[in-house]
Amino acid sequence: MSVKALINHFNAEIQLHIDTKTKPQGALGLLETIAMQLANIQSQQSLTKNISLNNPIMIVFAGDHGINQHGLSIARSEVTHQMVLNFLGGGAAINCFCRSNHIDLNVVDCGILTAIPPDMTKNSVLIEQRLGAGTNDFSKQAAMTIDQVEQGFTHSETLVNKYLMQKRDILLLGEMGIANTSAATAIMVVLTQYSVEQCIGIGTGITDEQLILKKQLIQQGIDRFALLSTDISSAENIAGNVKQVLAELGGFEIVQMVGTILSAAKAQLPIMIDGFIVSVAALAAVRIDNNVGDYLIFSHQSEEQGHQLLLVELNSQPLLSLGLRLGEGTGAALAYPLVKAAVSFYNDMTSFESAGVTV
Amino acid sequence: MSVKALINHFNAEIQLHIDTKTKPQGALGLLETIAMQLANIQSQQSLTKNISLNNPIMIVFAGDHGINQHGLSIARSEVTHQMVLNFLGGGAAINCFCRSNHIDLNVVDCGILTAIPPDMTKNSVLIEQRLGAGTNDFSKQAAMTIDQVEQGFTHSETLVNKYLMQKRDILLLGEMGIANTSAATAIMVVLTQYSVEQCIGIGTGITDEQLILKKQLIQQGIDRFALLSTDISSAENIAGNVKQVLAELGGFEIVQMVGTILSAAKAQLPIMIDGFIVSVAALAAVRIDNNVGDYLIFSHQSEEQGHQLLLVELNSQPLLSLGLRLGEGTGAALAYPLVKAAVSFYNDMTSFESAGVTV
Repeated sequence: MSVKALINHFNAEIQLHIDTKTKPQGALGLLETIAMQLANIQSQQSLTKNISLNNPIMIVFAGDHGINQHGLSIARSEVTHQMVLNFLGGGAAINCFCRSNHIDLNVVDCGILTAIPPDMTKNSVLIEQRLGAGTNDFSKQAAMTIDQVEQGFTHSETLVNKYLMQKRDILLLGEMGIANTSAATAIMVVLTQYSVEQCIGIGTGITDEQLILKKQLIQQGIDRFALLSTDISSAENIAGNVKQVLAELGGFEIVQMVGTILSAAKAQLPIMIDGFIVSVAALAAVRIDNNVGDYLIFSHQSEEQGHQLLLVELNSQPLLSLGLRLGEGTGAALAYPLVKAAVSFYNDMTSFESAGVTV
Repeated sequence: MSVKALINHFNAEIQLHIDTKTKPQGALGLLETIAMQLANIQSQQSLTKNISLNNPIMIVFAGDHGINQHGLSIARSEVTHQMVLNFLGGGAAINCFCRSNHIDLNVVDCGILTAIPPDMTKNSVLIEQRLGAGTNDFSKQAAMTIDQVEQGFTHSETLVNKYLMQKRDILLLGEMGIANTSAATAIMVVLTQYSVEQCIGIGTGITDEQLILKKQLIQQGIDRFALLSTDISSAENIAGNVKQVLAELGGFEIVQMVGTILSAAKAQLPIMIDGFIVSVAALAAVRIDNNVGDYLIFSHQSEEQGHQLLLVELNSQPLLSLGLRLGEGTGAALAYPLVKAAVSFYNDMTSFESAGVTV
């Protein structure tokens, strides 16, 4: 587990605190791992017997992708905009799950095709951090400039600072962007040893013809990137090199998720990761700073085959496996009550001694 | 899926209601199955577009087992009593998870060794439906009489009627009983084609010597039952025959869970099933009345190897797989927010048309 890197002076005490609870050792399975991780994160100054987790925010990062001019998705790029309006109206799946599990919601426009009209943005759910009007087609040219990547990271830092001011104690990340599985697949291939064939999935449900075209275009983008001779396996200037991967392959929402994960981890905030796209952003962030892994909670294993390989690559144990393939942060929102439950047993469950149980 | 038996006039309309939501078809995976099941249950008179699920009750059934005089568990039978007191005091894992997920809790004393003192029962969490002071040792003799089984079923019917008066709309079942995996394993073996070797697990964590003894004693009970020549594969008097299985092998809490499942299904209440022991009760209930399956929601797959076979036997798809092996209803309490989330998307998510999404 990546959380092991965070072992601190209080690690043994935290384990003891968990093991004296009125249950056989390890009987709460993955919830014990989560409690251990959160207690480690919050015990960096002194041991906590009371994990604080009361103010979650779901952040859905939205962006459009030039590559979708080839029709790689079941939907046209305009649907990203329509779905952002759906989020603002409160009617999408992510709205339902955030309401059901008492999670506040923000939507970040990272660069969808056309900005949301000002009269639709008044309910303060939307945050505008646009890097452009959709990325370039990465099969032919760089998705964006390095300056746009840097701007995205700066936006992310500002965003995380805002959440620290709001005393948020956990961030949940989701995304919306028609064709963003193409960009995410290309990034995964470049950052791992896997092939396009191994990483690609049907996304939200495309035809066989679309799948063949999607593979070709992703490979074309990867081949284009290979000609740049960026050595992403070298530790030297790894941050710069990963930023170049992001610039070449996109997209705007992926860049801002990478930046948000990096800034949140630096601020010692736990971060819940949703499905394939968010996990690719997590991979890029971990490549830039290996300590980031300690702060990540992987919510679910999606139906995307690349996601399963990626979770192994990141040495993670997802909480849920429900056959979800929607994105939006739905997996993270659904897994949040399990994290709350882990906190509740760590904070409130009695010990054998205090309960008079004589096992 | 067992829920298919419940297909009613409105099945196509329910599917259409789900498929016009702003998401690709099937993209919410197992949550769509749960929404379908609950909508079917609540659409028996007329189509519902608004599943009602607001008043859950967790019921932990507790009982003691004569067979534990051989020391088959990590704990002595007195620990059942101590844990019931822990439940009443609010300090156990199930208390934490019920609080965290806003679920009311009842504990039913079905026959633990010694009753809870009257001064400890005043908070109305405890319900006394004692069938005795622990069962007989089923390796040597019948765990209880048929009259006790009948009494248990009558208690269960009373209990379900009480919950109907309270307008409960879902029941969650859990259990506490030192050594009850032995009784549950024996019942599973008799009601399926599996062997003791296949069904047995380490429970909450016993030694190799205890495991060998546990297998021997369970087999002894099964062999004793076999001599009675009760034909549990015959449809004729199947209810009577399953009751005889319960009388011979126990335990008091298992009997009352079977009765509660039967009465709740008859009253068209959905029932969330916890781990191995509760699943064995579900199996017995389904054997008595095959329609019961339509009302069952399987919460999680536990670490018990018998549980995995049992879930296949019951043709069920559990919601969680977290490596839990505690019982108490913890898996059901943890899975409840997923069921709530399924209801929230069914009730509140917009359609493509109303949201103006043009996929």
